Amino acid sequence: MPYKAIREIGEFGLIDKIAALAEPTLQAVPELLKGIGDDCAIYQPSGKLLQVATTDLLVDQVHFDLLTTPLNHLGSKAISVNVSDICAMNAFPRFALVSIAIPPSFSTEMVEELYKGMSHAAKEYGLAIAGGDTSSSRSGLIISVTIMGEVEPEKLTKRNGAKPGELICVTGSLGGAAAGLKLLMREKAIMLDHFENNEPYNKSVMADLKEYSEAIQCQLLPTARLDIVRFLHSRNICPTSMIDISDGLSSELHHICRQSNTGALIHESRIPISASTRRVADELQDDAITWALTGGEEYQLLFTIPKEEYELIDDYKEISVIGEVTDPDSGVFLSDIYGMRIDLATIRGFDHFGR
Amino acid sequence: MPYKAIREIGEFGLIDKIAALAEPTLQAVPELLKGIGDDCAIYQPSGKLLQVATTDLLVDQVHFDLLTTPLNHLGSKAISVNVSDICAMNAFPRFALVSIAIPPSFSTEMVEELYKGMSHAAKEYGLAIAGGDTSSSRSGLIISVTIMGEVEPEKLTKRNGAKPGELICVTGSLGGAAAGLKLLMREKAIMLDHFENNEPYNKSVMADLKEYSEAIQCQLLPTARLDIVRFLHSRNICPTSMIDISDGLSSELHHICRQSNTGALIHESRIPISASTRRVADELQDDAITWALTGGEEYQLLFTIPKEEYELIDDYKEISVIGEVTDPDSGVFLSDIYGMRIDLATIRGFDHFGR
Repeated sequence: MPYKAIREIGEFGLIDKIAALAEPTLQAVPELLKGIGDDCAIYQPSGKLLQVATTDLLVDQVHFDLLTTPLNHLGSKAISVNVSDICAMNAFPRFALVSIAIPPSFSTEMVEELYKGMSHAAKEYGLAIAGGDTSSSRSGLIISVTIMGEVEPEKLTKRNGAKPGELICVTGSLGGAAAGLKLLMREKAIMLDHFENNEPYNKSVMADLKEYSEAIQCQLLPTARLDIVRFLHSRNICPTSMIDISDGLSSELHHICRQSNTGALIHESRIPISASTRRVADELQDDAITWALTGGEEYQLLFTIPKEEYELIDDYKEISVIGEVTDPDSGVFLSDIYGMRIDLATIRGFDHFGR
Repeated sequence: MPYKAIREIGEFGLIDKIAALAEPTLQAVPELLKGIGDDCAIYQPSGKLLQVATTDLLVDQVHFDLLTTPLNHLGSKAISVNVSDICAMNAFPRFALVSIAIPPSFSTEMVEELYKGMSHAAKEYGLAIAGGDTSSSRSGLIISVTIMGEVEPEKLTKRNGAKPGELICVTGSLGGAAAGLKLLMREKAIMLDHFENNEPYNKSVMADLKEYSEAIQCQLLPTARLDIVRFLHSRNICPTSMIDISDGLSSELHHICRQSNTGALIHESRIPISASTRRVADELQDDAITWALTGGEEYQLLFTIPKEEYELIDDYKEISVIGEVTDPDSGVFLSDIYGMRIDLATIRGFDHFGR
């Protein structure tokens, strides 16, 4: 298949292709009066709703590796990580602005593949792709996504409302994204090894990744928990604090405790870890609970609710109660399976500048 | 002076420093209920106003060169180029989200210098820095800025409302940014030449740039024309179409004509070019009118108004009438100083992918 160089269609030709891929996302958001094609996107807000805004920058070799990441998955993930921040406010995403800086090696088809992933994810979340910026990059691919969301003022959930005695809840299961990353890094090492030795990289040397698909999907194609936000709204549950888990459970729990001025006690035995994550950890001789506590990019939600609301979530298998909020002097602790208390300040998440 | 490595203060230490620099910008925008410090910024919109949203990505070696760009100027410019898009809608900027990816060579002080420039510009524009994202970069510095603005629905100005017979207006003077860029590139070449020959680069070999300060400021420290938006609102003038000049007058005029389905005729003799730009063009044996037509990054406003409104702008020296809107079959032409008509489709602006 002959690939088309971007210079053949030019900047405005590329923008036309992007606009065509964004177009199907616009129907869900009639309040968006103008998408791509003017100096700004135009939105008609409802004065009754609060707006929430978030942005994330994804940089080649820092946040992703194109050797192990399909472009449509990357596009989808770039949308999902931002929607996850909107979900953490108990809000609904409405529109996105997407900027990309494109390396010289990219063809038109590669850019389209990236936007197909974004457009697909946006449609899933009922979100319009409303504008952005395209430019060239001298090094790797750069993606910047900003998403605006909305929520009724009384439903808004910040990080600072947890109170001692409340329940600490987490959605889905943890550690899967870390398991997926470890598997992909192992696979990449095998691949590079074969390249270096001029050996063909074919199916005979490829690990069968099918059995690991759950973990790999957690890493490459995470889903923001908008379903949980819909569930919370449907049951009229308003968490007292909420955050999404992008830097590991331990780090996010510290954010909630610091901003709410509380402590916390969580129980190892209650932290949801899937069977497939445990199996990968066993195989790689690594520790699933450490992945769950420190693994980034989970995009599950961590939140607190009053004890009285327990019965409202009790029957919903996607939410696990993992502990309770304590007073600030008690610190932030994990009670392990032997009942030993471990100070979670010693177990940290990812720091971009590697302190 | 000992510079502080970012790993010494870590990601959250850096965010604290950034939040402190953003803090003074918050006072101007009481509708911003929460800035940096949660998963999202929180904003209380007025249901009476439309919202406009824009984003720009600035990439090292594509949009700027740190050899010739002071970091606080770069920070200011990153804000201004986005405010310029808000101005092009006849709207007022309200809050910004700022993401940066920081190369390993950067110290804490360099990041602070960048944000000082952003904070200073934001205060000038009455704009709050409300949040963002920080990460590391394996290559150069990357800055992504998104700005949200507001405008009364009846004042909103798009690109598509120009009608034959209307006047074409431009603010300030053109060509200065291109002149500044040419001067900085000449200066950089001299600098690199000295480095290569191991000669010290000191004042004796430095061109005295003071006499070029106007052009260099156009390039390094452009100002968005929020003053023009304020003027238009104060006189109750609502342009029928408007765009900011980021890719050259010729390219922007084509955008207005294509989206309004009109032609245009502008007059070379009426295009405002400053004396200093003409002087630089003479010195570099280049052509000031070409710079004015194709030079990017001017951040002046190009707009159309009905002829009857001429008297409302006649006395305001920052606005020049450069031509008139024509019917679509007439094309987009420049009448040169000899009265010859030149098809502006042959004179193009910047294309990121160099078709």
